[in-house]
Amino acid sequence: MFKVTYQRYLTMIEQFLAQLPWDKEILNQSMYYSLIGGGKRIRPVLALAAAEAVGGDPETILPAAVSLELIHTYSLIHDDLPAMDNDDYRRGRLSNHKVFGEANAILAGDALLTYAFELLASPGTSQPERQLRIIREVAIAAGKDGMVGGQVADVAGEGKTLNIDEIEEIHKGKTGALLTVSARLGGILAGGTEPQVTALSDYAQALGLAFQIKDDILDVVGNSEMLGKPAGSDLRQGKATYVSLLGLEGAEHQLHAQIQKAQSALKPLHEGAIFLNELAYFIEQRQH
Amino acid sequence: MFKVTYQRYLTMIEQFLAQLPWDKEILNQSMYYSLIGGGKRIRPVLALAAAEAVGGDPETILPAAVSLELIHTYSLIHDDLPAMDNDDYRRGRLSNHKVFGEANAILAGDALLTYAFELLASPGTSQPERQLRIIREVAIAAGKDGMVGGQVADVAGEGKTLNIDEIEEIHKGKTGALLTVSARLGGILAGGTEPQVTALSDYAQALGLAFQIKDDILDVVGNSEMLGKPAGSDLRQGKATYVSLLGLEGAEHQLHAQIQKAQSALKPLHEGAIFLNELAYFIEQRQH
Repeated sequence: MFKVTYQRYLTMIEQFLAQLPWDKEILNQSMYYSLIGGGKRIRPVLALAAAEAVGGDPETILPAAVSLELIHTYSLIHDDLPAMDNDDYRRGRLSNHKVFGEANAILAGDALLTYAFELLASPGTSQPERQLRIIREVAIAAGKDGMVGGQVADVAGEGKTLNIDEIEEIHKGKTGALLTVSARLGGILAGGTEPQVTALSDYAQALGLAFQIKDDILDVVGNSEMLGKPAGSDLRQGKATYVSLLGLEGAEHQLHAQIQKAQSALKPLHEGAIFLNELAYFIEQRQH
Repeated sequence: MFKVTYQRYLTMIEQFLAQLPWDKEILNQSMYYSLIGGGKRIRPVLALAAAEAVGGDPETILPAAVSLELIHTYSLIHDDLPAMDNDDYRRGRLSNHKVFGEANAILAGDALLTYAFELLASPGTSQPERQLRIIREVAIAAGKDGMVGGQVADVAGEGKTLNIDEIEEIHKGKTGALLTVSARLGGILAGGTEPQVTALSDYAQALGLAFQIKDDILDVVGNSEMLGKPAGSDLRQGKATYVSLLGLEGAEHQLHAQIQKAQSALKPLHEGAIFLNELAYFIEQRQH
């Protein structure tokens, strides 16, 4: 059942992405290249599932849900640039700037971020007041006090010895804020009550942390081919991770604690949240 | 009178920018450094003046007007990067990446663009439907089919012989689209009628073209110190400009024609548009 629902969401997302008006110009090709790089689509999936969890129709909020994937993709393109992480590969394919050049990669990222806000403002997604609220929330989560701020802190922290609180702070900004707003987006646009939206927030916050801990664990125990990047690369780069700070067993313990926290946050949503409950389990068990 | 009004708008804009919650972290400092680099603030001024031209209160739409300056500033930071135009100076000061490094410059641009949409969604700026409409229009003007698209075409056109239509096409995207939407923003958010908004559009489109022609003329006849960059740099880079294609006299003629077109577009706005009318004259006469 979980897999069927996940597949249904994925199909909605991929079809929506494919039907956007991409033309053959290099900018469109460059944006599309990175967008169809695959991945779990965890952010729009969270949004669609949150909409259903509060009794809404995920189809209605699809443009807004997909905007989250555009924002995530732009951040990956910019993070991979030589001036940042200087990664030649992403999910087993050449990174954007290796294919289209640095200038076009910067601009493709800029255009994806801008396009995301066009989609968030799509007419008829929800009541206009709710759409404006979500645009503000997404901008805050993706911006200087959220994702971009986390990336700046990450760049600044390179080569330094960070403790567990500092790492958690970076992750909260870099990945946590956008994941949390993804669940909120679905809940708010689909007309959820404030207690429901708070439940979705708490769930997504714990899930985001779990996601990051699992990433760190997979970097150590994972298989390079399944990960699409060399296993152990964080350790070799001397990056502090949950595993380097807590040990493998300590990290596994933390992971499980966050998954339980996520699942118990869902209680006010009753049966609407079965998929989200199983999604937490899926995050804990994933192999890539 | 024109100067008094311009100064009133500038004071509103500068005060708004200064009171935003900038902290001492490097990202905020980097964003603020480029934002307070000065300049004519032509985009927010256009928006505020357009709001007054349709009988609205410019103070109400100030966050949205300032968002246009954030978008313009982000585009300058990214354009100056080594992978793009590789400019070490901007308005007579070191460019952002020369002060804060390339990674932080990319991220400061990203954060400014994101912050712009947060400001555009500020509660109480106008009716929510109008705000959503403007968010869509700004995203389209700033994105792949507007400003970013124009920059991609500009990068792709380097070293090629472009004709006047191709140059006009690049400018329409690179600078024209955002200038046009600036005037529309003021008109729409302040509750202008559709004919008024169309008049503002036509005005700003001609003004944007005039602005670019004047830039090309100043590059040839201007004074490096007043321009804040070496005069003649376009010519030395072998860039096709209005002057290189039409000659100095031909470019002056084109400039005047566009200014007249802009001014005559204002007729439906009657006396509300006195400032905009004089702004066109100011653009024609400016020395930097």
